[in-house]
Amino acid sequence: MRKKITTLYTGEYMSLNLRTHYTSQINPQAMNGAEVTLAGWVYEVRDLGGICFVVLRDREGRAQVTLVKKRTDPELLETARKLMRESVIAVTATVKAEAKAPGGYELIPKEITLLNEAESPLPMDTTGKVEAELDTRLDSRFMDLRRDRTTAIFKIRHETLRAVRNYLSDNGFIDVTSPKVVATATEGGTSLFPITYFDREAFLNQSPQLFKQILMSGGLDRVFEIGPIFRAEEHDTRKHLNEATSIDIEASFCDHFDVMEILENMVAYVYSRIKENEARSLEVLGVDLQVPAVPFPKITYDEALEIVNAHGEESLKWGDDLSTLSENTIGAHVFKEMGVSHYFIIDWPTEIKPFYAMPYEDKPQLSKSFDMMHRTMELSSGAQRIHIHDMLKKRIESQGLDPEGFDFYLKAFRYGMPPHAGWGVGCERLVMTMLGVENIRDVVLFPRDRRRLSP
Amino acid sequence: MRKKITTLYTGEYMSLNLRTHYTSQINPQAMNGAEVTLAGWVYEVRDLGGICFVVLRDREGRAQVTLVKKRTDPELLETARKLMRESVIAVTATVKAEAKAPGGYELIPKEITLLNEAESPLPMDTTGKVEAELDTRLDSRFMDLRRDRTTAIFKIRHETLRAVRNYLSDNGFIDVTSPKVVATATEGGTSLFPITYFDREAFLNQSPQLFKQILMSGGLDRVFEIGPIFRAEEHDTRKHLNEATSIDIEASFCDHFDVMEILENMVAYVYSRIKENEARSLEVLGVDLQVPAVPFPKITYDEALEIVNAHGEESLKWGDDLSTLSENTIGAHVFKEMGVSHYFIIDWPTEIKPFYAMPYEDKPQLSKSFDMMHRTMELSSGAQRIHIHDMLKKRIESQGLDPEGFDFYLKAFRYGMPPHAGWGVGCERLVMTMLGVENIRDVVLFPRDRRRLSP
Repeated sequence: MRKKITTLYTGEYMSLNLRTHYTSQINPQAMNGAEVTLAGWVYEVRDLGGICFVVLRDREGRAQVTLVKKRTDPELLETARKLMRESVIAVTATVKAEAKAPGGYELIPKEITLLNEAESPLPMDTTGKVEAELDTRLDSRFMDLRRDRTTAIFKIRHETLRAVRNYLSDNGFIDVTSPKVVATATEGGTSLFPITYFDREAFLNQSPQLFKQILMSGGLDRVFEIGPIFRAEEHDTRKHLNEATSIDIEASFCDHFDVMEILENMVAYVYSRIKENEARSLEVLGVDLQVPAVPFPKITYDEALEIVNAHGEESLKWGDDLSTLSENTIGAHVFKEMGVSHYFIIDWPTEIKPFYAMPYEDKPQLSKSFDMMHRTMELSSGAQRIHIHDMLKKRIESQGLDPEGFDFYLKAFRYGMPPHAGWGVGCERLVMTMLGVENIRDVVLFPRDRRRLSP
Repeated sequence: MRKKITTLYTGEYMSLNLRTHYTSQINPQAMNGAEVTLAGWVYEVRDLGGICFVVLRDREGRAQVTLVKKRTDPELLETARKLMRESVIAVTATVKAEAKAPGGYELIPKEITLLNEAESPLPMDTTGKVEAELDTRLDSRFMDLRRDRTTAIFKIRHETLRAVRNYLSDNGFIDVTSPKVVATATEGGTSLFPITYFDREAFLNQSPQLFKQILMSGGLDRVFEIGPIFRAEEHDTRKHLNEATSIDIEASFCDHFDVMEILENMVAYVYSRIKENEARSLEVLGVDLQVPAVPFPKITYDEALEIVNAHGEESLKWGDDLSTLSENTIGAHVFKEMGVSHYFIIDWPTEIKPFYAMPYEDKPQLSKSFDMMHRTMELSSGAQRIHIHDMLKKRIESQGLDPEGFDFYLKAFRYGMPPHAGWGVGCERLVMTMLGVENIRDVVLFPRDRRRLSP
């Protein structure tokens, strides 16, 4: 459907604008007999002699192009028969309602244009009939994305981020961007990727933590950032990445309970938007999504230890961090007792949380911190933060860090820092737990890990 | 306003949730006599003896707290009088409609809580009475943000990004994230920041270009990404940054005219949303925003040269790139002739555009490329892309690049790459041209340039 565009000085151009409809936009009844142009990939060609079917696939589904030998121009039929799988075509055709065809219609073609031919053999199967290894799929992500399942995941990721942003914006949060190239490590010198920044050494930021706190001193009051974080950890697990997308908030005049409330409501909102707007993608993935009820249960760190120790597989003492095994034990226990997948663990020992977590006034060995857990893994960490300069400086020192490296941060606490709290959620973990995806690499288009730097 | 929260196992907690209203949320008539709690910063204290005014500032405005000596508890009055500027306070008070006060009301305090005291002297003035140097403001961004002008800019930036995302999502674009750590330069080896990625060398990505094109082969059809880009250019100008936020799209089955139409409509949409939703911020900045009419005028590269050469300050020959001076000459000319600030320059010489720009079939020395210009600077570059593998490989070679480094990219063109087009817009330039801001550092919270790596 070339469309005329008039330019001011030089006259007329034609825009390409090839497609009139996606496959899913054709209403068989209302559009019966209409002429349309679809564009997409050759999913398959079935040549039965007297009749030939070409199935065209686009992002939104599939459509069947039907060529009856007796009634089709021989040249057009020949073009159709010779189409290689996964080649790119545009089809201008008449819509014919046909209950038995996919989507309830077939297309009687007037013209088939081969826009780009695919080589053969293909690097992997796209029909889902042959299950490829994860590494093969990631090496050929451009082919993997042509599988319904993979597209469904990334549509849901899109809708997740849209829901998160809408929820936070509607609740007074301002979208901000902090620098990814930084001079100082957020939480000490480990796990950093060094950069050569002109003639200086710099690092890729592990977290927007220090910057979003500075913005609280700036009075932005409630901010969120969705952006990349970089951790040089040598993990090789199914739930760690070296480059990930973090959803972060910080809110002034709030404590940890206030931001837990924001978090649980946001998660429930995301689930409800996905259920409503991505029903077809959920169906493709075979996921029956349950929107979690709010508020999420809260258990204390002490209670978490009791659950682990009562279970008998591990013996933890007060002050120990929770292992993956303990997280699973607690998750299973909470799910069995309460039937829910999401819950908080609150009131962690101050010593095992970062220096910026606020201790309770009356029990300084406990901090106003929390983790939000899914039955299968940790999703988020957060806390009320220390907003008192001298207390913060002491905590930095007591963790063996040099306060001088934190001058740019500490300065913001000297001239009117409000009490504040916040959290960070891993976007990938949010999506993978929602969909029951086993490997975090499945929810990232081009994952980066210890071994993978390409594509 | 502490609020009870019941946890499942441990009983009751109280949430902080200090504020009941922002200053702007108080309706003097409807809320006359109501008790509210506001939280923010001490903007100023005016002690006139018999009466003392404390002006509280929050993100949304200011409110006047009035303490009449005769009618105020002496201890409360003493607290108020001693407040240091920029300290953080919470005020629980009764609303009293008062036409002469800011916002049409004053607050008769019941309680003033000093939440965090500011040191004195302050590192910079926040009232806007004393204009600080840009470097001073950036060094103390947390103070600078307390100025109305600075907050207004970042509210508008938030609303800009929200409008961009809504516009693109509503037009079928999927939000994607490409990796920032990459093995290959997008457009050759210059201007890259090297990273040590475990035992390998890697780079910070200059642009999501190659990845968004790969996604076209994957069939995602229409994608957008808003994320950081990194350029190791040693520029030291008022419109360059070494870390910036790029708004990128790529769309299949489209040519350059189709994506220019998306771009001009998006820009007009952003302007209209800012005008509607950020009227107060525009007022603070003294900006009378005009929504640009669509379509934007298009002039060819050849016509652009004519304009420059006719003007006489420069003499350009065919194939030369446009200098900043030429851009200004053309911008002034277009503004004078047509009264518009936004326009496109199209049909650039193939040789001065990146290797992935599609040449015209009948005039291969010209490419299907464009720049979107604002009167004062370039805002965006885009093109229909080459989707033919062999042509692309030749173009990579002819620019002196090694196709082997592009294997991961070229592979996506061999098995069904649709025709596609796209563009990138600098978020900062979009905001600065909209607001008439002179220096790009003013629209970035924590800018990174040749000299600045902190805060």
